[in-house]
Amino acid sequence: MSYRDTVGAGSPSSLPALRRRHFVLGAAAGTASAAAAWHASSHAAAPPGAVEHPVPADPSKEQGIALPDEGYGSRSQFESEVRTRYKTSTPQSSWTFTPLQNGMGIITPSGLHFERSHAGTAIVDPNKHFLYLHGMVARPRKWSMRDLRRFPSVSRIMFIECSGNGLTEWAKPNLKTVQETHGLTSTSEWTGVPLATLLKEAGVRPGAKWILAEGADGAAMTRSIPFDKAMKDCLIAYGQNGEALRPEQGYPVRLIVPGYEGNTHIKWLRRLEVSDTPFMTREETSKYTDLLPNGKARQFSFEMEAKSVITSPSGAMVLQDKGFHEITGLAWSGRGRIKRVDVSVDGGKSWREAALQGPILPICHTRFRIPWEWDGKEAILQSRCVDETGYVQPTLGQLIAVRGGALNGPTGSIYHLNAIQSWRVASDGSVSNVHQY
Amino acid sequence: MSYRDTVGAGSPSSLPALRRRHFVLGAAAGTASAAAAWHASSHAAAPPGAVEHPVPADPSKEQGIALPDEGYGSRSQFESEVRTRYKTSTPQSSWTFTPLQNGMGIITPSGLHFERSHAGTAIVDPNKHFLYLHGMVARPRKWSMRDLRRFPSVSRIMFIECSGNGLTEWAKPNLKTVQETHGLTSTSEWTGVPLATLLKEAGVRPGAKWILAEGADGAAMTRSIPFDKAMKDCLIAYGQNGEALRPEQGYPVRLIVPGYEGNTHIKWLRRLEVSDTPFMTREETSKYTDLLPNGKARQFSFEMEAKSVITSPSGAMVLQDKGFHEITGLAWSGRGRIKRVDVSVDGGKSWREAALQGPILPICHTRFRIPWEWDGKEAILQSRCVDETGYVQPTLGQLIAVRGGALNGPTGSIYHLNAIQSWRVASDGSVSNVHQY
Repeated sequence: MSYRDTVGAGSPSSLPALRRRHFVLGAAAGTASAAAAWHASSHAAAPPGAVEHPVPADPSKEQGIALPDEGYGSRSQFESEVRTRYKTSTPQSSWTFTPLQNGMGIITPSGLHFERSHAGTAIVDPNKHFLYLHGMVARPRKWSMRDLRRFPSVSRIMFIECSGNGLTEWAKPNLKTVQETHGLTSTSEWTGVPLATLLKEAGVRPGAKWILAEGADGAAMTRSIPFDKAMKDCLIAYGQNGEALRPEQGYPVRLIVPGYEGNTHIKWLRRLEVSDTPFMTREETSKYTDLLPNGKARQFSFEMEAKSVITSPSGAMVLQDKGFHEITGLAWSGRGRIKRVDVSVDGGKSWREAALQGPILPICHTRFRIPWEWDGKEAILQSRCVDETGYVQPTLGQLIAVRGGALNGPTGSIYHLNAIQSWRVASDGSVSNVHQY
Repeated sequence: MSYRDTVGAGSPSSLPALRRRHFVLGAAAGTASAAAAWHASSHAAAPPGAVEHPVPADPSKEQGIALPDEGYGSRSQFESEVRTRYKTSTPQSSWTFTPLQNGMGIITPSGLHFERSHAGTAIVDPNKHFLYLHGMVARPRKWSMRDLRRFPSVSRIMFIECSGNGLTEWAKPNLKTVQETHGLTSTSEWTGVPLATLLKEAGVRPGAKWILAEGADGAAMTRSIPFDKAMKDCLIAYGQNGEALRPEQGYPVRLIVPGYEGNTHIKWLRRLEVSDTPFMTREETSKYTDLLPNGKARQFSFEMEAKSVITSPSGAMVLQDKGFHEITGLAWSGRGRIKRVDVSVDGGKSWREAALQGPILPICHTRFRIPWEWDGKEAILQSRCVDETGYVQPTLGQLIAVRGGALNGPTGSIYHLNAIQSWRVASDGSVSNVHQY
């Protein structure tokens, strides 16, 4: 933990005025709902997954709600943040975005983990589900969930990011909030069996180079994974944040491919096939390649490069007044640990190093924070991260120079947009999504 | 992460037989329900917080469930683990226990975090709630939740344990499962404002030695906290596992006193008063002291000493056959990091060092695992942890020698039972709670 970053900002000299200041997400403080007024939530609808209780005038004057004989808790009736769906043509092949603007720390609540499915959420009975392993192996295998639970297990806190995170943003700033621009990344503690353990049991034949992973969903989602990666750190995961996987995360079992694009983390996993060549499935030929300016396509662009974003203040928030504001956000890299995050409030002219909240884990969201005294003038907020390989998060201009204008032109990448995000703070305190190259 | 500990056990020689073996919680495999058959859950009732969907014969032959336009996810309809309540005379002053036997990794799902309340769960409107700070300060303060959210924040993954965890177990093994014997400890990622920041703003007067923390619940729960501890690492927490606190955890704001007994982590926090003496509240005089054999009481026994428990196999589970089983559990210390966990399968005659799953964080659950080949004979499973101060978890005999027999005699501790737990595996595979001194 780093308390150091708060002590400076926490000195009596700078803090008393804080009491009058806050963010509101929405047009203005006056028009914001009571529910929205005290935290950055734009959502005032009845909170999903919450139990409604009468609200006493003074709770200390009466007995509270009885503890249940048996129970599974839900959140407060005053909490209303939700995943929101991108308006795709069908609600089965679609995305829902994590509300990063309200995020705290690094763990994503399982109920708010982003979703990306090609044929909706498959409902799979764990008592009838089997995982098959065949192909270039000495002993083809079939395991029930019970069998998989019997193997030695491991747990890792890791992010998963969809390679399409931000794909609408190449040409111009189309979306308003950080939930929309960056909400296809989430972090959970995943528990399961190392894929290497299963491969050892099946006895892999010489010459094995690739593994096909296939889902039990309506899309029969399939991707080819390099054999070396499978042996290195892939997980057959049945646990998420201390309980079973959530249905939309592939219940009862999914593949975890640490640091690779989200679509390789096959959900509702039912089949693994070992081969000496990639399988060239639909998802790695017609989709999930990166068409470059010269007309050639990058194929198997698996690793998610280092990326960061300021989650607060962020798009559609309104700063109510000048003075102290904490700037906070997330940084992550598919190649290892985050080494450093710098923050600019002048559109990249000058940078200050942010404090990184421990634990700083490989292939995991890392929370950064830095104090900021807003002078009431227009400001452009940016974050730029560096991972342990030395890779520096690029500007949008640098990325487009290499990968093309994407939606802006005939060719160019659609996926893997990891450029520096710019938030414009206007003199009236309103924050908006802008492009800076 | 440590994949090393799994590779050995994962060798082809030892693993094939695994496919036929599993745990069942309950009388025997044959009688266990299908839902219970594939994981260690004794509970077959309709799962709380789950949405019921029709189950297709082959999910890959049809479209799955549409992604919602807006949503907050719930767990699978096949998952049914719950917190269970200790049958106290009133359901308001009671406990519910975390199902540790099903736990994975170190994070406790917020819906399964243990509860301990003295007057039920207070329902507090965050828009009308204030935190007061007064007493020996230059500038008494009153903050709304909005104000508190404006201060610089920190996040820490930490356990909270009730000092009454296991209090029925001093004299004889009264309870059956690890949920009942050890389920009053849970781990979350907590986010909030350092108490030191608030104290600095209020300007503490010379001579301050203690701080009273008071809750807004029906018990007006109050405890005195040493001033040095408050300045060192206490948190005014509004975040739990990436979202707002859950109601039963003190929504909208609670005190976190890292490593201290759970009852000091005042929930629904409404008042802080700085003083030069402890306040000698009911909860620290008539309760939460440790009566020793000589008739004197230990007062202010704040720190939770190092403790560990094997969560699987554990009480009421049934091993279906001989051969490989993974022994796993949790270790934690209120004084810092866990340094080492040893496991015995012969009642403490011999010990082997278990693998610790990273990240190993101070004042946090640490997951340990070790492979075990069961020979089908009676075995006594024990875990013994050592923390970074060098403190070694005591045997029950060692602890009683110092603190008395408690419920067994006229005097002796009721709280702070951190002795080594023994699980007896009978030759028929049934696991039961036994005492060994």
